[in-house]
Amino acid sequence: MTTRSSDDERWMAAAIEESRKGFPAPNPNVGCVVVRDGAVIGRGHHEEAGCAHAEAVALEQAGPNARGSTLYATLEPCNHHGRTPPCTQAILASGVQRVVIAAPDPNPIAQGGAERLRAEGVEVAEGVLREDAEQANPVYSFRFRTGRPFVLLKMGVTLDGLIADSRGANRWITGEQARHRAHELRAKMGCVLVGARTAEWDNPQLTVRAFPKRHQPLRVIVAPHSHLRPTLTLFTDSSAPTVWFSPPDAKPPGPHVSAVSLPEEDGKVAPAAILSELASKGVIGVLVEGGAVTAAQFLEAGLVDEIELHVAPKVLGRGTQWLQGSGFQLDEAIQVEWIETRAIGEDLLVRARVVN
Amino acid sequence: MTTRSSDDERWMAAAIEESRKGFPAPNPNVGCVVVRDGAVIGRGHHEEAGCAHAEAVALEQAGPNARGSTLYATLEPCNHHGRTPPCTQAILASGVQRVVIAAPDPNPIAQGGAERLRAEGVEVAEGVLREDAEQANPVYSFRFRTGRPFVLLKMGVTLDGLIADSRGANRWITGEQARHRAHELRAKMGCVLVGARTAEWDNPQLTVRAFPKRHQPLRVIVAPHSHLRPTLTLFTDSSAPTVWFSPPDAKPPGPHVSAVSLPEEDGKVAPAAILSELASKGVIGVLVEGGAVTAAQFLEAGLVDEIELHVAPKVLGRGTQWLQGSGFQLDEAIQVEWIETRAIGEDLLVRARVVN
Repeated sequence: MTTRSSDDERWMAAAIEESRKGFPAPNPNVGCVVVRDGAVIGRGHHEEAGCAHAEAVALEQAGPNARGSTLYATLEPCNHHGRTPPCTQAILASGVQRVVIAAPDPNPIAQGGAERLRAEGVEVAEGVLREDAEQANPVYSFRFRTGRPFVLLKMGVTLDGLIADSRGANRWITGEQARHRAHELRAKMGCVLVGARTAEWDNPQLTVRAFPKRHQPLRVIVAPHSHLRPTLTLFTDSSAPTVWFSPPDAKPPGPHVSAVSLPEEDGKVAPAAILSELASKGVIGVLVEGGAVTAAQFLEAGLVDEIELHVAPKVLGRGTQWLQGSGFQLDEAIQVEWIETRAIGEDLLVRARVVN
Repeated sequence: MTTRSSDDERWMAAAIEESRKGFPAPNPNVGCVVVRDGAVIGRGHHEEAGCAHAEAVALEQAGPNARGSTLYATLEPCNHHGRTPPCTQAILASGVQRVVIAAPDPNPIAQGGAERLRAEGVEVAEGVLREDAEQANPVYSFRFRTGRPFVLLKMGVTLDGLIADSRGANRWITGEQARHRAHELRAKMGCVLVGARTAEWDNPQLTVRAFPKRHQPLRVIVAPHSHLRPTLTLFTDSSAPTVWFSPPDAKPPGPHVSAVSLPEEDGKVAPAAILSELASKGVIGVLVEGGAVTAAQFLEAGLVDEIELHVAPKVLGRGTQWLQGSGFQLDEAIQVEWIETRAIGEDLLVRARVVN
């Protein structure tokens, strides 16, 4: 015979698994299962911002059987009207008898769900597998714990650490699976950032195309000194919004582009000011995709939280290094901790946490 | 009930495990177990060049019980007088009834052992786990298959691929366990090679000091244009022999140093000529330990067989790249295949085979 608490953990683990399926940034990843008589009668996850919440999806699937059931949610059900109605309302309407929650919602705007449910007579248990649920939602948790977006620096490099050969050629250094993962990271973070040179020389689109995505990530160009040419893909392609940290007199070249001019220190816009501006636009995570100078500016400002290298099985011997900063002395080097190393197609994925 | 053949494989696997314990370069790794009535009565490996062979060690341990036993050897027992008497002689004197051999000796000088034993009435089986045994002895197998020494390039680098910070400081980039492994590699290859700049700037000793080693590896300096200062450790420390690929008029600054002047092409000594000269001195493997220019010369000549990076959990942002060559274009990059990636102390070990 299993106890209620071990049952709760088992169903919550299923809900956490479910939560990982979506790419809802800037919203949190949430998973939900509805259980009755020891069987799952509904399951759902929050797929994209603007789509139905996990609880609504799972309850819809359960239908009238939800009455008297137990609902497991990885995050406290929301109690506010955002782009969708409050989940507490759907739960109350369904007749669910008991709600088990892993983690409280760290976003003050969305809080109060557990309290509301209890006030309406629903039995509520909180904190089941809380740590696991928060780990499955690292970007959102980070944003509300620290007050600034989580910054992931991702670079595709050769084994000798280069992002381009001596003539500047860089397509493609890494293979298809690495590029697919790069699109997943864009979707996961909800915001992609590049510097002026990458925007101009590579002329990237920075959207998610490897799999269907209704809402594209916010694209950011840090180019406070460059009057970028209006034919850049980031300006002509309106499938995603673009924020251009621009010179003061810049004119946005399209309705999907907004130009933001920030004050400078020592001739540079501070990465902290950029993150603060993006946070005010609702951004919870930023994927820095290069180039080498922009990457170094964020790293040297202590504002990179994780580094992810996609290392191609190639050696060039000469070319552009993936990081070009002012440099630290060896005894003051930035320290990292290894998270994971594994094959990703023909490439090697190396993930490291920055010890800031 | 186990069959004779599955028993043979089981004991041979034990002999192969035993073979890995030694650092006998330029001799092969060999392991041996002597089995009687289903039990091991003697085991041994070839520890260092000049020391007793595996068979002699195992038979010594077995003593008079060896009579009528079966002896498992990972390599065909030698039939020649080198620094030690032929193993065939020891086997015949011991009264061993049956000898099981994994791989034939690829060195023509040492061959003929199996034939000799058969001629004396010993039962001989060959080829048991041959592939495994050869894989456990890759440097020696390579040397006799290809005619040139195996070349392993090992560099200790930061996560941004640097071997020194912008002031040239490089002690220590990697941690203690990585340095211990570097000493193991020196012992395994039997020969360590560096360029002029590494010899002068780092002034290394290049010996094995992390564990006891009676015979130190051959040390090689490639410095055909440098009149190195006679106070270099490689010149003053006589605990290991040093070969200096030198300008024509160079005088070896000590009796343990030999100066070799090779003809140049385009102002360089060809890496192939260096390897050929080292092979003629009995070298079976070369560990290239730097610097960035020397590493690139061997790589770009197609004469590096394996690359091993010890990646420290540090980021510098600016400094000396681990490879400085003339460079390939991206579509002609040197290709590698991943062998292994794992933690080595606080560092990351990345091993890759070069597809030449």
